[in-house]
Amino acid sequence: MYSFACDYLEGCHAEVLRALCETNMEQAPGYGEDRFTNTAREEIREACADPEASVWFVNGGTQTNQLIIDTGLQPYEGVLAAETGHINVHEAGAIEFSGHKVLTLPSHDGKVAAADVEAYARHFYGDANHEHMVFPGMVYISHPTEYGTLYSARELEELSGVCHENHLKLFLDGARLGYGLMARGADVTLPLVDQLCDVFYIGGTKVGALSGEAVVFPKGKEPAHFLTRIKQHGALSAKGRLVGVQFAALFRDDLYFRISRHAIEKAMEIRRIFEDAGCRLYIDSPTNQQFVVLKKSVLQELGKYVGYEFWEETDEDHAVVRFASSWATTEDGIDQLRHAVAVCIKSSG
Amino acid sequence: MYSFACDYLEGCHAEVLRALCETNMEQAPGYGEDRFTNTAREEIREACADPEASVWFVNGGTQTNQLIIDTGLQPYEGVLAAETGHINVHEAGAIEFSGHKVLTLPSHDGKVAAADVEAYARHFYGDANHEHMVFPGMVYISHPTEYGTLYSARELEELSGVCHENHLKLFLDGARLGYGLMARGADVTLPLVDQLCDVFYIGGTKVGALSGEAVVFPKGKEPAHFLTRIKQHGALSAKGRLVGVQFAALFRDDLYFRISRHAIEKAMEIRRIFEDAGCRLYIDSPTNQQFVVLKKSVLQELGKYVGYEFWEETDEDHAVVRFASSWATTEDGIDQLRHAVAVCIKSSG
Amino acid sequence: MYSFACDYLEGCHAEVLRALCETNMEQAPGYGEDRFTNTAREEIREACADPEASVWFVNGGTQTNQLIIDTGLQPYEGVLAAETGHINVHEAGAIEFSGHKVLTLPSHDGKVAAADVEAYARHFYGDANHEHMVFPGMVYISHPTEYGTLYSARELEELSGVCHENHLKLFLDGARLGYGLMARGADVTLPLVDQLCDVFYIGGTKVGALSGEAVVFPKGKEPAHFLTRIKQHGALSAKGRLVGVQFAALFRDDLYFRISRHAIEKAMEIRRIFEDAGCRLYIDSPTNQQFVVLKKSVLQELGKYVGYEFWEETDEDHAVVRFASSWATTEDGIDQLRHAVAVCIKSSG
Amino acid sequence: MYSFACDYLEGCHAEVLRALCETNMEQAPGYGEDRFTNTAREEIREACADPEASVWFVNGGTQTNQLIIDTGLQPYEGVLAAETGHINVHEAGAIEFSGHKVLTLPSHDGKVAAADVEAYARHFYGDANHEHMVFPGMVYISHPTEYGTLYSARELEELSGVCHENHLKLFLDGARLGYGLMARGADVTLPLVDQLCDVFYIGGTKVGALSGEAVVFPKGKEPAHFLTRIKQHGALSAKGRLVGVQFAALFRDDLYFRISRHAIEKAMEIRRIFEDAGCRLYIDSPTNQQFVVLKKSVLQELGKYVGYEFWEETDEDHAVVRFASSWATTEDGIDQLRHAVAVCIKSSG
Repeated sequence: MYSFACDYLEGCHAEVLRALCETNMEQAPGYGEDRFTNTAREEIREACADPEASVWFVNGGTQTNQLIIDTGLQPYEGVLAAETGHINVHEAGAIEFSGHKVLTLPSHDGKVAAADVEAYARHFYGDANHEHMVFPGMVYISHPTEYGTLYSARELEELSGVCHENHLKLFLDGARLGYGLMARGADVTLPLVDQLCDVFYIGGTKVGALSGEAVVFPKGKEPAHFLTRIKQHGALSAKGRLVGVQFAALFRDDLYFRISRHAIEKAMEIRRIFEDAGCRLYIDSPTNQQFVVLKKSVLQELGKYVGYEFWEETDEDHAVVRFASSWATTEDGIDQLRHAVAVCIKSSG
Repeated sequence: MYSFACDYLEGCHAEVLRALCETNMEQAPGYGEDRFTNTAREEIREACADPEASVWFVNGGTQTNQLIIDTGLQPYEGVLAAETGHINVHEAGAIEFSGHKVLTLPSHDGKVAAADVEAYARHFYGDANHEHMVFPGMVYISHPTEYGTLYSARELEELSGVCHENHLKLFLDGARLGYGLMARGADVTLPLVDQLCDVFYIGGTKVGALSGEAVVFPKGKEPAHFLTRIKQHGALSAKGRLVGVQFAALFRDDLYFRISRHAIEKAMEIRRIFEDAGCRLYIDSPTNQQFVVLKKSVLQELGKYVGYEFWEETDEDHAVVRFASSWATTEDGIDQLRHAVAVCIKSSG
Repeated sequence: MYSFACDYLEGCHAEVLRALCETNMEQAPGYGEDRFTNTAREEIREACADPEASVWFVNGGTQTNQLIIDTGLQPYEGVLAAETGHINVHEAGAIEFSGHKVLTLPSHDGKVAAADVEAYARHFYGDANHEHMVFPGMVYISHPTEYGTLYSARELEELSGVCHENHLKLFLDGARLGYGLMARGADVTLPLVDQLCDVFYIGGTKVGALSGEAVVFPKGKEPAHFLTRIKQHGALSAKGRLVGVQFAALFRDDLYFRISRHAIEKAMEIRRIFEDAGCRLYIDSPTNQQFVVLKKSVLQELGKYVGYEFWEETDEDHAVVRFASSWATTEDGIDQLRHAVAVCIKSSG
Repeated sequence: MYSFACDYLEGCHAEVLRALCETNMEQAPGYGEDRFTNTAREEIREACADPEASVWFVNGGTQTNQLIIDTGLQPYEGVLAAETGHINVHEAGAIEFSGHKVLTLPSHDGKVAAADVEAYARHFYGDANHEHMVFPGMVYISHPTEYGTLYSARELEELSGVCHENHLKLFLDGARLGYGLMARGADVTLPLVDQLCDVFYIGGTKVGALSGEAVVFPKGKEPAHFLTRIKQHGALSAKGRLVGVQFAALFRDDLYFRISRHAIEKAMEIRRIFEDAGCRLYIDSPTNQQFVVLKKSVLQELGKYVGYEFWEETDEDHAVVRFASSWATTEDGIDQLRHAVAVCIKSSG
């Protein structure tokens, strides 16, 4: 049975696997000093149009978020995030484990509004007691968000402007960045992300790799002794080559972008299947995650045909269900979904 | 040029790579709930002769040490370790980052003596002010140690006995466990480790895998909500399959033990090459790391022929140099070393 | 000029000061093992009607909150609090510094509703992904709250019931506990607090002492090695006698309650002054903090006559201002306030 | 029975108590912004001959050490200390609780040698793997040390020089600073401490106050947002006046120095009593703590006459015992000690 439950169900893209096989027995130094990792760094700098960018490789989104936030903040600072932000809800308190508070802002379909950041900063510094409070030091955004939504170039520019006027760093969590960059109509590019953010990461785990995320500090402005901080967090891989080889493959000949576009195409097919069946979309997502409102009564039956992820109840009779495409989504999988919807939803409807 | 600098220079064993390739496009759930990981768990339980053992997979030694120690200790407790222990010296303060003190004991060629643990506990509880001090809660040992040495079964039993009499957990860091178990004359077996320790890990990164370590809690005695703790530490992989597939391959048909034995055979060849050249071994290591005392004057020349790792100076004219074999060490590599020694050392000697 | 800005403007009550003077040169052991501290412990146990209560003395509310919450939670747990709770807003991230997340609930005039706690727990455990989230482990309430409001006995009973059904500890921050217990119509007593909470503290700093808060663990159920945890937090006083002597004086002959009642009487006079002047109270507070809505245009002039604390704007023209009474509030002070209101507010109205 | 067990057995000096009484009912703002605290700041700046010095008041040595070290270090740095240093042994891991490692140096009667610091730094930066290690960022010394010994001006200058050449901050723990400055023959003055250290504190708890230590950052070089850091550590007193009033009294008319000299005179009398009785001093301490080697067989009897603190065994028959004088030590107490020694030791000898 084909599953659309999430975007990390398969191993890695065939090209990535081939690179792992081809380089497997070549001896290479540890801790990210190997030639594969250096190639990946160069390719990413080029894709970002930032020859000075400082690029590091880490495993996993939570690890990466904890590392970037902890090293980007002063000890008396916290990080601003939408209340729906992954770091606020689904990382088991990894940010607080490193001593920092997550300061929440309203979520606009998963996004943070520049005006809310500005208001927060104004209110904070306007409070006579603000020295008894956690200083805001960074803004965390995800792009795409946890709800599949995207910032427009203009929104990102405004956010960046507000951040820098208020001495806040802007950090973009790009666990699914490829799917955001390749969405139809998206006007945010990798070089723009590099220009507007103080730090961001390009997710590999969900976009073609077995593991690994590429952390980018634009213009080389990285925290002091960043390698030591990675080690201290337990996040430094002895065999740095594992992620280096994968990213070198992903950023060769635009593979990362091509496979991301594939996921978008499949996502739009998923969307159409549900729209054609008369289902309501919970959120207008242009990326690989589609959130559909379904009757709770059909869910069990549907689950016999395809995998999905239950998201949340909306009322007594309805629930939001996630269907995610990825670089790996197959024609056959889409066909199975089409069949499942025909059987379980159209007929019930 | 062939390198003996460390034991994580290559990718993974061919069988492991094959397993990754064969399973690559199979859909599997995340976070270690996939069938590959479950197979690996079963195989490891069998190898440990402990059907109830609780088995988890994590990436990297420092991450694993931090996680096990932090979750194994109460907040007011520290961990006892040899002053040469990896956690005390080469993990950038990862243990302290999680709030715990490393309490040091004398190193006996890298090993902790049961008598020293007993004396520490006696002295601690005998001190009228011990409630103002860090309580010892766990003993950390590495097997093989950072110096390639091994505990005998009797030493491990004594240590385990002393630990449990004094309410201390015993944690064995097995980053190179295979090389310890397969050393000639070694009488410590995996089931014995499982019987004597409260927690240990079986290293994959240095023994045939691209990444990953298997954490074992004998008899299923794991910390409460261990998955949440892993997540909180940023150590939970979305694609848990990556390590699961590898360990399933490593523990199928004793592969882990067979490739470990290969490394030992190569290590003994390395040792013989240096002994034959009249060089002094710094430590009598029966495992894959050989520490040789060389004249500093030959080091530069030697480095033109083979890779090694400078360890430390012993006097003005001599230094200790490490030559590590691994599951991947080739005949050709050994030949290159033999040639290098003949050219650079014998001739100089 | 007399100030009502807060309730920690003076030193300590005359009886407390006398006790400090009388005991000053008596030699006493350190770290809370002195006879004064033991007397204070006995008196508090009696006032709580809990002969087994475990009583400790610490300095300052933030220190006490950090200590109680950190030692009361497991490392994977966070603390639930009203979003207006002191620990969430005004303690500079002290809870997160110790590694724990503050999980927020709606504020009902500063109070936490039992129904909200229940809903949180139900929603948390009902979420299939809750193991990726921070576990709720404790509920923090303040009594009186930051807004001067009080829980009724029934509300506290409900809250306690919901907490214990859901395996949550109930912690009551009693920085101003005396002012809550002595409020008119209040039906929560110290023995009731002791019965319903898992831990609470009786504030001294704001109620008659120069420094110090008494932490009470009902029935002696204190965290393991609590003295060591206090030390680890840097909160163990060498001269424990300083707080011990003060609390022994405060709980001798009901002094703590008598001086608290004095503050309530003065608070009601403050309230009446503003009501008579036609001012709106922001919140109906039965305790020592009165929050009054005033025209912003009168604030500057008012500040020439009496001290107050600006709380927050309500609209363009109005603001909330706090007037606090305490054990030390004098008749003369009240007269000055009456005069100030007559001059600045009545005339302007 | 008179006790010499430690130097925090009494309350505070009569002048300090008088100041507390006289200022008790004066209203003053909280958090160290009161006029008493400002006076104390001015007096201390003058005593340090450093008009720009930044002065803060905190409670208790462990709290102060944790706060200074945590705010003085970068997150990847640890603090160097003698292995006998208070922070390494007797603070329950308070430094590690804040995430930092204590890096140990040999103890020379409690002191750190400049040469050892230099060697540590040289060895650290010379190690090719030092980025995997904890960076040394600060040197912690106590003056007097835990063994009552003192640095000479020349030793302190050398240490300061070595620290600054190696980018290490020098932090002097002055819990008993007065007793060090007033020791006979001591050539380290408060202005010299201010010149040579990056931060130090002047202990009040053990030198005339009920509570409180004065933290001094010479030339005003304090950590950013230090008040917020104090709050975050739970160390900010609402009634800052309590310590402010005490230090204002202690530094008025050289009271701090006069009462410290008293303690030294009494310490020398204690010393003479034991020397006259033929007892061996364990360490040649010129300060208020005297460490005497006594036969274990006399200890119980001695304890019936005077209080002392058992320090440690030296051999089967002997032990080191501490006798501490203080600002409060009386003639009568000394007489009791003389009698006790005559009865228990001379007669047994």
